Amino acid sequence: MAQNIYDDPEFFGGYGRLRRSVEGLDGAPEWPALRALLPPLRGLEVVDLGCGFGWFCCWARAQGAARVLGLDLSERMLARARASTADGAIAYERADLERVVLPAGRFDLAYSSLALHYVEGAEGLLAAIHRTLVPGGRLVFSTEHPVYTAPTEPGWRVDARGRKTWPVDRYLVEGPRRTHWLGKTVVKQHRTIGTTLNFLVRAGFAIRHVEEFCPTEEQIAADLSLAEERERPMFLLVAAGR
Amino acid sequence: MAQNIYDDPEFFGGYGRLRRSVEGLDGAPEWPALRALLPPLRGLEVVDLGCGFGWFCCWARAQGAARVLGLDLSERMLARARASTADGAIAYERADLERVVLPAGRFDLAYSSLALHYVEGAEGLLAAIHRTLVPGGRLVFSTEHPVYTAPTEPGWRVDARGRKTWPVDRYLVEGPRRTHWLGKTVVKQHRTIGTTLNFLVRAGFAIRHVEEFCPTEEQIAADLSLAEERERPMFLLVAAGR
Repeated sequence: MAQNIYDDPEFFGGYGRLRRSVEGLDGAPEWPALRALLPPLRGLEVVDLGCGFGWFCCWARAQGAARVLGLDLSERMLARARASTADGAIAYERADLERVVLPAGRFDLAYSSLALHYVEGAEGLLAAIHRTLVPGGRLVFSTEHPVYTAPTEPGWRVDARGRKTWPVDRYLVEGPRRTHWLGKTVVKQHRTIGTTLNFLVRAGFAIRHVEEFCPTEEQIAADLSLAEERERPMFLLVAAGR
Repeated sequence: MAQNIYDDPEFFGGYGRLRRSVEGLDGAPEWPALRALLPPLRGLEVVDLGCGFGWFCCWARAQGAARVLGLDLSERMLARARASTADGAIAYERADLERVVLPAGRFDLAYSSLALHYVEGAEGLLAAIHRTLVPGGRLVFSTEHPVYTAPTEPGWRVDARGRKTWPVDRYLVEGPRRTHWLGKTVVKQHRTIGTTLNFLVRAGFAIRHVEEFCPTEEQIAADLSLAEERERPMFLLVAAGR
């Protein structure tokens, strides 16, 4: 089973105070870029893998999705997601993405935000997503970028002139990375971009778009702390079609 | 026109002493991985964009390719390539990859080794390659990895414990990078992986394989200097189909 750090009370408390937890989709700088990869949602059957508080599920329904299924491993996440909506067309279920079973040909859109880097068996998950999509269906996901996950000691180095660099090592050494976040040890799976994309190709997906997220000039002007995101990629965004 | 650094006498002299220049394909550690992406060559019409000394062109003929066209900007490279073979089915022509014109539907395989990072107009080049391939044709290429090209000051940092890290900055700031190599200033074009792959998708290619080169255990055992290649990716290898 994947690490269920989100059910740790302290971690959950810290996570709930992040901007993206308080403000929802608009609190995540990569959301406009990820949203741009989505098809029109009206009438679609949607599954959200790693739905967290359910922000995307509710947004998808507001965009006209027919039904939305949100899956997450964390009971705490699911409890808050369920408490946030009375919409009968949104369902939340507990699922471990390492071994999730999905009905064949069931969904028009599979969406996943920042969950894949927790999954050790990403190849199996991506194959399962391919099977659960209808022909012509889409997969749109974000994951932590391998430049971000690779380092033995992730964190900016600042030189004498104040220039920030990101110290990459072990980029080609795939596998678990233990980092400290919100006061806890979090286990992420480091995979190269090539590995992730080849999993998609082998599952039968056509790759439609690959983006290493960079905030726009407007986003940086509105929040100068985002400027450092130009120095090294933090998120990988992918759209693929069945 | 792209920078024609290979026609600089000093640079050309230095380049000619590199292991990959002296030993040919087998002197390039990424060659086995790139070769594995090639289709069987027997009977194929092949174009090599940035053919250099013509090592690949001669190898392709030895594998049974029907005809091979090698293109390069450097007169010195082409002169040496022409002097290396009397095979009438191999032709070498001078071409600037920034504005190369290729006949429509002419080739079964387009190959390019470590040339794309010199090309500013990569989108136009990849579209031209798509047009010159027959339906079902393949493109296989290597290019310098953006983690390798991005930094303001490329080069290993070694910490007090002897650990090497690669100082990434400006990863999301695409454009020219001036580096010093073989005693000269060389201009390379830094592009993210996403940008390169999206150019392929927009040109009409199906992405078949993406690989961030890592030497094998056997290669490292035979040449310990390759061990550092596990720390940060130097080459991006891609296979795509028309």
